[in-house]
Amino acid sequence: MRATVMYGAGDVRVETVPDPRIIEPTDALVAITRACICGSDLWPYKKMEHSEEGRRMGHEFIGVVEAVGADVRTVKPGDLVVAPFAWSDGTCVFCHEGLHTSCLHGGWWGGTELDGGQGEAVRAPQADGTLVVLPVGRDDALMPSLLTLSDVMGTGHHAALAAKVGPGKTAAVVGDGAVGLCGVIAARRLGAEQIILLGRHPDRIALARTFGATDIVSERGDEAIERVRELTGGFGAHSVLECVGYEQSTLTSLSIARPGGAVGRVGVPQDASIPAAQETFFKNITIAGGPAPVRAYIEELMPDVLEGRIEPGRVFDRVTNLDGVPDGYRAMNEREAIKVMIDF
Amino acid sequence: MRATVMYGAGDVRVETVPDPRIIEPTDALVAITRACICGSDLWPYKKMEHSEEGRRMGHEFIGVVEAVGADVRTVKPGDLVVAPFAWSDGTCVFCHEGLHTSCLHGGWWGGTELDGGQGEAVRAPQADGTLVVLPVGRDDALMPSLLTLSDVMGTGHHAALAAKVGPGKTAAVVGDGAVGLCGVIAARRLGAEQIILLGRHPDRIALARTFGATDIVSERGDEAIERVRELTGGFGAHSVLECVGYEQSTLTSLSIARPGGAVGRVGVPQDASIPAAQETFFKNITIAGGPAPVRAYIEELMPDVLEGRIEPGRVFDRVTNLDGVPDGYRAMNEREAIKVMIDF
Repeated sequence: MRATVMYGAGDVRVETVPDPRIIEPTDALVAITRACICGSDLWPYKKMEHSEEGRRMGHEFIGVVEAVGADVRTVKPGDLVVAPFAWSDGTCVFCHEGLHTSCLHGGWWGGTELDGGQGEAVRAPQADGTLVVLPVGRDDALMPSLLTLSDVMGTGHHAALAAKVGPGKTAAVVGDGAVGLCGVIAARRLGAEQIILLGRHPDRIALARTFGATDIVSERGDEAIERVRELTGGFGAHSVLECVGYEQSTLTSLSIARPGGAVGRVGVPQDASIPAAQETFFKNITIAGGPAPVRAYIEELMPDVLEGRIEPGRVFDRVTNLDGVPDGYRAMNEREAIKVMIDF
Repeated sequence: MRATVMYGAGDVRVETVPDPRIIEPTDALVAITRACICGSDLWPYKKMEHSEEGRRMGHEFIGVVEAVGADVRTVKPGDLVVAPFAWSDGTCVFCHEGLHTSCLHGGWWGGTELDGGQGEAVRAPQADGTLVVLPVGRDDALMPSLLTLSDVMGTGHHAALAAKVGPGKTAAVVGDGAVGLCGVIAARRLGAEQIILLGRHPDRIALARTFGATDIVSERGDEAIERVRELTGGFGAHSVLECVGYEQSTLTSLSIARPGGAVGRVGVPQDASIPAAQETFFKNITIAGGPAPVRAYIEELMPDVLEGRIEPGRVFDRVTNLDGVPDGYRAMNEREAIKVMIDF
């Protein structure tokens, strides 16, 4: 089959790789129908060291089950399924606690050991725990929004939960990428009264407004902090969604949180430490978040997608086929596209 | 009157200072009957730069109201009162949210502007919001435990709340000072099933055991982390109470938290950043805490003290008079005493 392999910074290729096959009795084979490129794929795209072996890419996909192992019970050939960005058994102590990203028998798509979502098919381990059957056909118009349940919508939701968004509160979203935009959707869905997006790209800002952002802050650094304070009666936001991962964006996030507020971080941290240890201490700021256990959220969010209450699929502003994936990376890296969908 | 003044590291003096008087109509004058030395007083004792002016010390006290300003309604001369370590108006938005340490019209005892608790009397600003009347006489046997409501017991409770201690959970307490020991009391009070104290002083360990610690870890660094993992089925603790404030103790606290767990930090951070940004992210660790809004907790904790269900006053292992305060600092700094009470 053909799949996406990254060999180093800026070096993404689509090439022939071994066909996946059932290995464990808990596996399923899934022929991918839709996938996408993630903002987190851009971290290795920016700085991965050259590798002879390469690294299989992609962790967000929808596909059709082609075959299942002997122990698989909940999915069957022909099912259209969505996969969360981490696979999990659904039965361990952490899965029971809703923290599927810490599953004792789980793991991550792609890399050197496993298929990735940016290819024609995958071997899906722990199929019963991982895959969720979609109650629609593969060409349904809701496909883009359903695809976001594999990562960005669930990740925005996780940021909002970690930041303790709730009715009547003020939420600030740092970052206008696909996750930040889904964070706006999530904050509104959870009842935030004021939603401030920190971003500066006109097309993303426009989308954020349709998703529910009430205020936009396009300044950066100290000016952004000052502007958020002005918009919040001088106090800062109850809830801050950190959707970038740089030290500067983290510092901004921590600085715009109101005393007693919470910062939910879902941007993968690019630095070894969290700044402002003392400032956050004296303000009793809660810092929470991490990789979203999106598997825990799919059932909760799917009805809102199916019934049209949320439209996270609008973050996709470009569609390509598998051959277009390398250019999709380039376009997202240059911020020419918010998020690229791959239609197989 | 006479009061404690710190002029620099290791330089604590008891000397004559101006008598306090009512300045604002919301003030009260309080003659102090009991006070104590705090672990956080040891930070300036270790590293304060020399100051000609000096800094008034002490933020934990019980005393008798001697006079009140024209606007004071809830306390009256003759009342025996306990003061939280931060004063607050009780009416602002943050006080209403239970975060009295961020009161818009509040502040901290001592320093260069205000009286401190380690003296014969204080002018207590925002008396109605700050002071809580005690329903016992000034020589009641419960006085040591009631005095801990001004800081260490409320601070241990805050650490436990921030660390999300609850019934059936495993709690680890990092630090065997008075706050850590009160953290053990708080963790038990909130229903923790397993309580692991990280400490190495035999007398403190013995006290921790009587307070409810089920396990003691006296190793440090990586060995301590390994030992806690062994004690918790390999996962780490649901709740970690960071009661020290050094980078190393913070790193240990973050490392022994189980995936999805929470670290409640109440030790004043001595470093500019929080370590392990990435490790805590991938494990979805929550980092919370700060200066405890003990004013919010006094009413909740006091019945447990009055009815003998908790005995936090046992953390006092030395009593002195005002003249003995400088030696009390020395004794606590050399870890000869856990916590020193001042009886006037």
